[in-house]
Amino acid sequence: MSGYPHNPSGYGYGAPPPPPQQYYSAPYAAAPPYGQPQQSSPYGNPFSALVPQRFPPGTDPNVIACFEAVDVDRSGVIDDKELQRALSSYNQSFSIRTVRLLMYLFTNTNSRNIGPKEFTQVFYSLQNWRSNFEKFDRDRSGYIDAWELREALTSLGFAVSPVILDLLVSKFDKTGGNKRAIEYDNFIECCLIVKGLTERFKEKETTYSGHATFTYEAFMLIVLPFLIV
Amino acid sequence: MSGYPHNPSGYGYGAPPPPPQQYYSAPYAAAPPYGQPQQSSPYGNPFSALVPQRFPPGTDPNVIACFEAVDVDRSGVIDDKELQRALSSYNQSFSIRTVRLLMYLFTNTNSRNIGPKEFTQVFYSLQNWRSNFEKFDRDRSGYIDAWELREALTSLGFAVSPVILDLLVSKFDKTGGNKRAIEYDNFIECCLIVKGLTERFKEKETTYSGHATFTYEAFMLIVLPFLIV
Repeated sequence: MSGYPHNPSGYGYGAPPPPPQQYYSAPYAAAPPYGQPQQSSPYGNPFSALVPQRFPPGTDPNVIACFEAVDVDRSGVIDDKELQRALSSYNQSFSIRTVRLLMYLFTNTNSRNIGPKEFTQVFYSLQNWRSNFEKFDRDRSGYIDAWELREALTSLGFAVSPVILDLLVSKFDKTGGNKRAIEYDNFIECCLIVKGLTERFKEKETTYSGHATFTYEAFMLIVLPFLIV
Repeated sequence: MSGYPHNPSGYGYGAPPPPPQQYYSAPYAAAPPYGQPQQSSPYGNPFSALVPQRFPPGTDPNVIACFEAVDVDRSGVIDDKELQRALSSYNQSFSIRTVRLLMYLFTNTNSRNIGPKEFTQVFYSLQNWRSNFEKFDRDRSGYIDAWELREALTSLGFAVSPVILDLLVSKFDKTGGNKRAIEYDNFIECCLIVKGLTERFKEKETTYSGHATFTYEAFMLIVLPFLIV
């Protein structure tokens, strides 16, 4: 589990861009240098001009290069299979379910495609979660334990109770034994679910009351996409 | 898809017991007749006397015989693997995820075991859902369409809006195409999720207001078990 970059910045998409180092492995290095015109491969299909999304000026070249490397079919968007391949290339296996949950949470649609804007958010979030995982996986075993999961979630801004923590650990410990240990990909799924549900709760929360009120319709439309992604 | 018994009774565990006919296929017939002492196999392990759950007097002999047939290891409880095998034997494949969701919803715990009481509820619910599926699968294709799903859910007591129906169909249509058709096992998963979420919403609903208020803790503890079963 060694070798991934350490990012000491805190939680949030607003964190400063990471230093320009390789984040994804193989395909990343193969991407053309940012800023060079790509005459032979004018980025994208003939309809790409119709796609309104572009990386805004000032975007970290690493993010753009990574997007281009992941966008194997040059469609201008990343589909679920492309994202799964890119994430799994880092010596990890991401289930298509986790990948689709990731896409759903960052687009709030079921389109199964992400453009430059969402990709940038996904990039920084994953970098943030990975550096958190690394921080708590002190012995580089590839696992964190229940206590470390709690510390990691707290450091990401999610303070969960012991009861919720226990539920998360019992579900995301897929080591098959009683190790109560969580692997990297399950940690990411755990982060996604906690983040997604917490954000949706907060959208409905009366200011600082700690309570949220839902109609049946809203409750079902909030929860169902998580369940059957 | 022909051949399963028709149960015209409505929704609910309180429905009258079905006529004594074979519901599960092979193992059902192999079970010892109800009421005969089983000297050679005194039902259960040496600790079974410590298990307080027993079928109450008057229980449909079919339910007891089915339980005994499914309880392959004679432990006195049905575990997730035993239930999956029993359900899948009826020419259907039930994912372990669906089976665990079923067990969670009928026990409200993560024990992954069900005793006689929960088994009886599962038995009647599945019979009810199956007969509903059969009623709407008029051409015996093994599928029901979006409109039929809506009719089936309504007839089970769950009136869902067109938006929710659309979400359910887009998720539970696993035929891979654009048929918007739902197979039996996916129909059961759909029923489980709609039933489970609706019941939990209603527990928190202020009487007939259509609104339910949750604390963050309650919201997470209600939703998480569905997600990570």
